Amino acid sequence: MTEFCVNPIAGIRLASVNAGIRYKNRNDLVVIEMAPGTVCAAAFTQNAFCAAPVQVARHHLTQGSPRYLIINAGNANAGTGAIGHQDALATCQALADLTQCLPEAILPFSTGVIGMRLPVDKIQAALPAALSQLDADGWSTAACAIMTTDTVPKVISRQFQTAAGNTITLTGIAKGVGMICPNMATMLAFLATDATIALPLLQLCFDQALNQSFNRISVDGDTSTNDSCILLATGQQALAETDIAQFQQELNALCEELARRLVLDGEGATKLITVEVVTGKTQAECLQVAYTIAHSPLVKTAFFASDPNWGRILAAVGRSGLENLDIQRVSLFLDEVCVVREGGFALEYQEADGQRVMQRKAITIRVHLGRGSCQDRVWTCDFSYEYVRINAEYRS
Amino acid sequence: MTEFCVNPIAGIRLASVNAGIRYKNRNDLVVIEMAPGTVCAAAFTQNAFCAAPVQVARHHLTQGSPRYLIINAGNANAGTGAIGHQDALATCQALADLTQCLPEAILPFSTGVIGMRLPVDKIQAALPAALSQLDADGWSTAACAIMTTDTVPKVISRQFQTAAGNTITLTGIAKGVGMICPNMATMLAFLATDATIALPLLQLCFDQALNQSFNRISVDGDTSTNDSCILLATGQQALAETDIAQFQQELNALCEELARRLVLDGEGATKLITVEVVTGKTQAECLQVAYTIAHSPLVKTAFFASDPNWGRILAAVGRSGLENLDIQRVSLFLDEVCVVREGGFALEYQEADGQRVMQRKAITIRVHLGRGSCQDRVWTCDFSYEYVRINAEYRS
Repeated sequence: MTEFCVNPIAGIRLASVNAGIRYKNRNDLVVIEMAPGTVCAAAFTQNAFCAAPVQVARHHLTQGSPRYLIINAGNANAGTGAIGHQDALATCQALADLTQCLPEAILPFSTGVIGMRLPVDKIQAALPAALSQLDADGWSTAACAIMTTDTVPKVISRQFQTAAGNTITLTGIAKGVGMICPNMATMLAFLATDATIALPLLQLCFDQALNQSFNRISVDGDTSTNDSCILLATGQQALAETDIAQFQQELNALCEELARRLVLDGEGATKLITVEVVTGKTQAECLQVAYTIAHSPLVKTAFFASDPNWGRILAAVGRSGLENLDIQRVSLFLDEVCVVREGGFALEYQEADGQRVMQRKAITIRVHLGRGSCQDRVWTCDFSYEYVRINAEYRS
Repeated sequence: MTEFCVNPIAGIRLASVNAGIRYKNRNDLVVIEMAPGTVCAAAFTQNAFCAAPVQVARHHLTQGSPRYLIINAGNANAGTGAIGHQDALATCQALADLTQCLPEAILPFSTGVIGMRLPVDKIQAALPAALSQLDADGWSTAACAIMTTDTVPKVISRQFQTAAGNTITLTGIAKGVGMICPNMATMLAFLATDATIALPLLQLCFDQALNQSFNRISVDGDTSTNDSCILLATGQQALAETDIAQFQQELNALCEELARRLVLDGEGATKLITVEVVTGKTQAECLQVAYTIAHSPLVKTAFFASDPNWGRILAAVGRSGLENLDIQRVSLFLDEVCVVREGGFALEYQEADGQRVMQRKAITIRVHLGRGSCQDRVWTCDFSYEYVRINAEYRS
């Protein structure tokens, strides 16, 4: 129920080191060790150009339970063709040699610049030091080591009591503030719990949580080639079937909070925008409208300027592609302020009310479609000079 | 064949005046008068929240041949509900009263801020002066008067000789550099020819031209509520059936050049980017990939920075939603430089080659999908600080 400081997960140890992949004075390589018997649920990018580590991790997951995750920041090992695939396998082999496990028991993850060869030798050279520093309390350090253009680490723990009275812990880290419009999982997120839970059920719970969190955020509408999201369950704490609902709720909260923090730290972001679309015919159409708003550069720059320029939101609703949308039934709210009622501006609306709302750091856009009982929501951020600067300078 | 200075069209007169709608020291109201017998092809936005003038113009076109166009800049009369509709009708009525024609013979067009009431009284007050200044040579002045965030007017003329030896003239003006991802027509474009051509054929020619020009550009992926595109034919010059192919070719060239100029003047744009997608299964899938690239903020900021960050282009191709895309068959060129061959970086590619291309003001991204014989192309621009500034400040 409660959100604590970062709690370790029995059965998980982490290490972060500087392998010099791209960054000089910070860690950029993380190794996560899982106790035998840990089960692993996973979700990966739907981008057809998925990176070499994604291809390798997907394949290795079919070969049995993984024992190690190896994660590097600074180089995505994407768009690298057959050589990149070999490089990802080589890092797994190097870690396998040092730990006497099969290379198939290792899942590789990479994030950073696309289209450059992974410096396998640097990673190999850094592995012995990493293995000597494995630590159950390594979560916060790891959250820092996987960052790229992130400005703050994202790490969260939650705990709850089962009906039988034991304490279940969930802890997760995530990164990714650009090329963020995940389709199955965000850039990189690694979650773990000590609960005992079979893989099919774990994956089910995970998919549910993802669809309310990492799959409902957008910074720039660009889906990464490297999105990977992992949920480990080490099986050190009993979890009865009757506890599953509670487990799901905690997992949802963990994922949602991590996802919100990614958006809050979105490249150049100054505001967290929740886009709620309600009274739609289907959840899918609500999501379609919500993402059209969330991806509109005009809406996002207006929020950066704290300008209640609701015409741009209406224009986005109008071009979102809904069949037979009756605009006479569409209403629009900025937080508690009704700006559009039944397709035209609300008579009671005062520009000062809109401006008051726009000063806030977290704002909800709520669109009523007036044609059904379904709804959905996504989180996004505004679009600032800083976004352009970060992405114009990222490779230099 | 040749592109001349701006040629008048026999049967068309234009006037531009300052009605004080939004701008102080410039014209913001245009009246275009057509000779009796002029036929009018049209295309309008597909945005469900289409503006009041779009609704009125669409309806009036069903009532017979129009005699006047009335165009204002600074106020879009969109998102204004029933009141906005009445306001659009009122401006038509005012012009009808002064010209002794039916209000249905008048087509209204508006562009500018969404969600504010149109100042009908100011427009009415300015109409007598406009009517007294109607002039066949008013095209260039009108191209300036319809601008909003445009920085240069767009006006083009073309002429060609028919087989019978007479000269056919085509002249057009266009505006719109933000909220530009037209779906049927760009923000505002008014074209005219003196050719004699029946409406069904004129509309057919127009639709063909639009689908290679105004329907193939994007500045920011946002489709306007007010897009309207008009092609008038005054029937003063004979055009034989055997001249139609030539007419179509000239019309295509006129529309393409106007469309390219809109993108070149795209808000904050520093580069013109042509995105060509070839060897696709269908034209539709080529267009889908092309627009995914053209809308990617990451691709657009990389071009602003003159950074050959081709990984971002590859990521956009990968997320564009093509079924069963085999990335091993995908190749990518920046102008003449091959950067990706068969899914991985081209072995001969040198960063210096990419950087050389990126210094250019006009660059072609060519994607080979390797799965068919279809192709399409769109024009877009880069994404700069200036884009954010313009759109963060537009209403203030």
